[in-house]
Amino acid sequence: MTYDAGHYDVIVVGAGHAGCEAAIASARRGAKTLMLSMNLDMVAFMPCNPSVGGPAKGVVVREVDALGGVMGQVIDKTYIQMRMLNTGKGPAVRALRAQADKPLYIQEMKQMLENEANLTMRQGMVEKVIVEDGECKGVITETKAAYYAKSVVITTGTFMRGRVIIGDLSYESGPNNQRASVSLSEHLEELGIELVRFKTGTPPRVNSHSIDYSKTEIQPGDENPQSFSYETTDVITDQIPCWLTYTNEFTHKVIDDNLSLSAMYSGMIKGTGPRYCPSIEDKVVRFHDKPRHQIFLEPEGRHTEEVYVQGLSTSLPEYVQKEMLQTIPGLENAEIMRAGYAIEYDAVVPTQLWPTLELKTIPGLFTAGQINGTSGYEEASGQGIMAGINAAAKALDLESLILDRSQAYIGVMIDDLVTKGTNEPYRLLTSRAEYRLLLRHDNADLRLTEIGYKLGTIKQERYDRFTEKKQLIEQERKRLSKIILKPEAELQAIIEEAGGTALKEAVKAADLLKRPEIKYELLEKVTPADKELPADVKEQVEIQTKYQGYIDKSNQQVERMRKMEDKKIPEDIDYDAIGGIATEAREKLKRVKPLSVGQASRISGVNPADVSILLVYIEQGNVSRVANQ
Amino acid sequence: MTYDAGHYDVIVVGAGHAGCEAAIASARRGAKTLMLSMNLDMVAFMPCNPSVGGPAKGVVVREVDALGGVMGQVIDKTYIQMRMLNTGKGPAVRALRAQADKPLYIQEMKQMLENEANLTMRQGMVEKVIVEDGECKGVITETKAAYYAKSVVITTGTFMRGRVIIGDLSYESGPNNQRASVSLSEHLEELGIELVRFKTGTPPRVNSHSIDYSKTEIQPGDENPQSFSYETTDVITDQIPCWLTYTNEFTHKVIDDNLSLSAMYSGMIKGTGPRYCPSIEDKVVRFHDKPRHQIFLEPEGRHTEEVYVQGLSTSLPEYVQKEMLQTIPGLENAEIMRAGYAIEYDAVVPTQLWPTLELKTIPGLFTAGQINGTSGYEEASGQGIMAGINAAAKALDLESLILDRSQAYIGVMIDDLVTKGTNEPYRLLTSRAEYRLLLRHDNADLRLTEIGYKLGTIKQERYDRFTEKKQLIEQERKRLSKIILKPEAELQAIIEEAGGTALKEAVKAADLLKRPEIKYELLEKVTPADKELPADVKEQVEIQTKYQGYIDKSNQQVERMRKMEDKKIPEDIDYDAIGGIATEAREKLKRVKPLSVGQASRISGVNPADVSILLVYIEQGNVSRVANQ
Ligand SMILES: Cc1cc2nc3c(=O)[nH]c(=O)nc-3n(C[C@H](O)[C@H](O)[C@H](O)COP(=O)(O)OP(=O)(O)OC[C@H]3O[C@@H](n4cnc5c(N)ncnc54)[C@H](O)[C@@H]3O)c2cc1C
Ligand SMILES: Cc1cc2nc3c(=O)[nH]c(=O)nc-3n(C[C@H](O)[C@H](O)[C@H](O)COP(=O)(O)OP(=O)(O)OC[C@H]3O[C@@H](n4cnc5c(N)ncnc54)[C@H](O)[C@@H]3O)c2cc1C
Repeated sequence: MTYDAGHYDVIVVGAGHAGCEAAIASARRGAKTLMLSMNLDMVAFMPCNPSVGGPAKGVVVREVDALGGVMGQVIDKTYIQMRMLNTGKGPAVRALRAQADKPLYIQEMKQMLENEANLTMRQGMVEKVIVEDGECKGVITETKAAYYAKSVVITTGTFMRGRVIIGDLSYESGPNNQRASVSLSEHLEELGIELVRFKTGTPPRVNSHSIDYSKTEIQPGDENPQSFSYETTDVITDQIPCWLTYTNEFTHKVIDDNLSLSAMYSGMIKGTGPRYCPSIEDKVVRFHDKPRHQIFLEPEGRHTEEVYVQGLSTSLPEYVQKEMLQTIPGLENAEIMRAGYAIEYDAVVPTQLWPTLELKTIPGLFTAGQINGTSGYEEASGQGIMAGINAAAKALDLESLILDRSQAYIGVMIDDLVTKGTNEPYRLLTSRAEYRLLLRHDNADLRLTEIGYKLGTIKQERYDRFTEKKQLIEQERKRLSKIILKPEAELQAIIEEAGGTALKEAVKAADLLKRPEIKYELLEKVTPADKELPADVKEQVEIQTKYQGYIDKSNQQVERMRKMEDKKIPEDIDYDAIGGIATEAREKLKRVKPLSVGQASRISGVNPADVSILLVYIEQGNVSRVANQ
Repeated sequence: MTYDAGHYDVIVVGAGHAGCEAAIASARRGAKTLMLSMNLDMVAFMPCNPSVGGPAKGVVVREVDALGGVMGQVIDKTYIQMRMLNTGKGPAVRALRAQADKPLYIQEMKQMLENEANLTMRQGMVEKVIVEDGECKGVITETKAAYYAKSVVITTGTFMRGRVIIGDLSYESGPNNQRASVSLSEHLEELGIELVRFKTGTPPRVNSHSIDYSKTEIQPGDENPQSFSYETTDVITDQIPCWLTYTNEFTHKVIDDNLSLSAMYSGMIKGTGPRYCPSIEDKVVRFHDKPRHQIFLEPEGRHTEEVYVQGLSTSLPEYVQKEMLQTIPGLENAEIMRAGYAIEYDAVVPTQLWPTLELKTIPGLFTAGQINGTSGYEEASGQGIMAGINAAAKALDLESLILDRSQAYIGVMIDDLVTKGTNEPYRLLTSRAEYRLLLRHDNADLRLTEIGYKLGTIKQERYDRFTEKKQLIEQERKRLSKIILKPEAELQAIIEEAGGTALKEAVKAADLLKRPEIKYELLEKVTPADKELPADVKEQVEIQTKYQGYIDKSNQQVERMRKMEDKKIPEDIDYDAIGGIATEAREKLKRVKPLSVGQASRISGVNPADVSILLVYIEQGNVSRVANQ
């Protein structure tokens, strides 16, 4: 029935945000990689918002970049607007966000993949994975092509048994009227993989010509745009603004009046939606007292008049969407080009995965992206690169990579997913990261470039630049910690001008920099470095010095956490042999199979008492194992 | 069940090559127009070859342009290569062809539509047309939106009950894994519209990096590229070459050996394929003695590595496609990015249409493009503009437009379709046009701009430029026909240098120009015009003068034809009341309902004897009519 269509090290199924990173990471690690996707015109397609980055998400883009991924490079080449958010707040919550030119993003990403050595890209609809002797050995497409590989990464997003829902209409479909992926979903179930039904939604798009922008507030890009990628040298200065408007009591009345028609409230949708990307009907219901909600009008690209109505995600019937728009200042006459809709789809229950994103029950099979219960391009991209790295590792017998919660948001996300699972589409938030002061967007390279270099995904030339940057930071910090500044007139004047209180006695330059009002630029005037330092070096010196106290404290917590992470639990430990653990905890432990006592302690239902027992049991050294694992 | 989603003059269903022209023409004629299409990311998508133009087809692009259409303008902005074909041959078969940048073509066309006044563009899947009192009043989408209009144009291409076929695999799908349009097809059948099953196919695409171009011949673009549109002022000089290679006995053996696996030969495909765009298996079977077939390697765009393998359209299984490629010089290691496939779909039997492209049985409902049994982007575009013009005419009570066979290839095509019907996907060929010397690509503007201007689709400024051009041509022709050239030394030298025989006596400049070897440029040296003439004026003067004899003869034939076209037949004539007509002819006449004796004479099965009887009957003036028409 099938025919042998070729042999690879790694096969990546899907060319969304997860698939693209997975394929490139795998190829760059040296694995002969095949990417199979349903439609090559829709590579890295953005079915929802035309933007990349934002709080937590933007940090992930930089982390992916530091590991040798491509999302940052591609968005840097294709944005129509770049903004640094939260500039008034601390460095832990600052975030870069870009508005993307959607068609251009597709073009750039596709070309990047086409030009990647070791990577073959092919259009094809995957229906099955080949499992032999309990291990994944390849995939079969609907044209009966059997492709063989040592590991397979599935990144099929919202396509698995996708159903689009608008009001009381519902039909089988992938995003934006693409084909749904039905057979694959059924097949994964047959393989014993537990699936869960999630949903997400998108707002209408309107024609720019039909918007009265005079009733809205302009949201321009930054004058000096920063970049996501540490490889980017040129910035795009010709930017396009977004516009801000608000819903009001009339909008909310339209929604209230029609709530029973919303697929989400009529019981039509079974899947669970994302709490942190709610539909407008959700927002109106849950925050009933809030008089208005923000609506951002975001162009979908440089060469299109389509405008994305951010904040108005909905599954209300089309005509209600129209009524809703008519109540919003600036959108009174808005012509809908595409109606908003919700989509329901199958996701893999992520506690079935090792932290490498490999399925526990089917060695060689990895999943990444929305299929693992997350939502968002960046979340997909972050998992994609990890799955690609680890699938290549498996295929080539190299070291696999697990990032811990102190190393990266990616680590936080994957640990959350595989340890706790998720009851709704999981989205990254700064609040999910207990060490968020360490996981800053400004230090993603310092945290991860070394790892990328060792993996081979970061090239020598970039690594050399990185090493130089690191040295400059260290040298400058050392210098500042040695220099003593006397309370002389010039310095006092500078301090006063900055709004600080005058020095009473001599002080170390580093200590002065710790004062909130003292910027590195001020210090530089009195004690300049031997030669002018690059802006990112100055930024690091300032942040590291200013937040030294907090950072040290975080690092101590990390140390304690690491100790628990270092207490490894054998994969085949027999939890039934450990006395005294509560029943619920035992079941959860057997299911999640934590790799360390640290991970065990984060499983919900596993209490500190259970952790102590487990710890003692492991430390005592005589661990019972399950036969036949 | 449905809700009122809005009222328009004209609704166009589909945003392919037919739909885009229909919508723009309708809007430019002043009709409030709605365009509904399944997927707004795929506007003017090219599912097959990345090229526009060529023999006959290229002329249609210029005709569309002269009528105020957009295909010419869009391809002029987005080509990667432009070539004038058959430059060595007569002007009737010369043809312009461009290689398109597919994604850029989509972007440009979409933006053009988005910016068109009077035109609303919306994503939506149409399932039904609204028919009330026997007339078409609008459409209903799958979201139960009912849009009302005075006329509706359906341009759904190959989507209606589309089935993709590769080897023994077959699945419901539109082109390139888009959704098929099933409900609409069923609905049209319910309305009593006769459908027919056609098929077409496309070759594999390969990655440019995997081609060994050194084994192929380069096919560069023209050094001085011409443009399709009379509006274009800038040409693209940075062109990308195509490459030529050939099949050989090994390729043909692979095909012969696997013929039984081809969907087309296994009986899997019921639909009829295009004779003039045959699959490679067709070519090998039908021209068994031909040792090789041309294969052009055509880039799909500037920013993609995908290369279209022109000449290798096939529905053989994927692995046979791979084997086939391996036998072709330069493609030995070609990596297939998308496999070739055939697609079967429903088309409307076009004899059910008036020459305005309105359905005879459902006033207000028009169809255009591949749905009418044609194949090709240009054929679609030519019908699209006519349907748009006539749908707007119907809605606004303006004059409708029918082009006759001497006015345009578009006229030939539509007359063929509605008069003769077609047993296979119809493609325009120069041989279909009996007045092809009149239907040149160089005079499309002279033939049609006046009409476009009257329709309101050609703007004043362009019309003024056109009028000036026309005057310059006439003045110059008049001048040349008056000037007498004496056989002086300078002239004789010029003639000799051009390879002609010396003059014996004085001659009119115009007569000298009729000599094949004498170009206008030569004549210009001895008798320059008062002021330098534009190149296109010189070209016209030369062609019109040189081919005067042939053109006059064609025009006489046209006169005769026109006389027959002028003998109008009332729509409700009762053919049963005419004695002496053969039974087959009577049936055909009742079915096709020709608008003139001329059209009647072209119906196959209607013989000259029948035509004479009909003519006499009509001329005698007392025509019986069918009641209740
Ligand atoms: C309607 C909608 C609304 C959304 N709203 C939001 C939102 O509000 N906020 C937010 O953060 N995110 C939102 N998203 C989610 C966001 O689009 C995804 O998180 C992101 O695109 C996921 O990336 P991915 O790579 O996992 O999957 P996708 O980008 O969906 O890519 C999946 C890929 O797999 C391919 N594929 C699928 N099945 C097969 C198969 N069987 N064989 C071969 N290829 C296959 C597809 O062609 C595609 O290339 C929304 C998505 C949709 C569709
Ligand atoms: C596989 C393949 C091979 C081909 N090979 C050749 C070839 O070799 N030579 C050649 O000359 N031509 C070929 N063609 C044909 C060429 O693509 C078409 O002739 C041309 O695109 C027809 O233009 P169109 O506007 O009629 O239809 P299309 O370009 O197909 O456009 C149809 C439009 O209708 C929309 N649509 C469909 N159904 C609905 C609905 N129910 N509601 C709303 N919108 C709808 C679609 O989304 C699309 O926008 C091929 C086509 C395919 C698919």
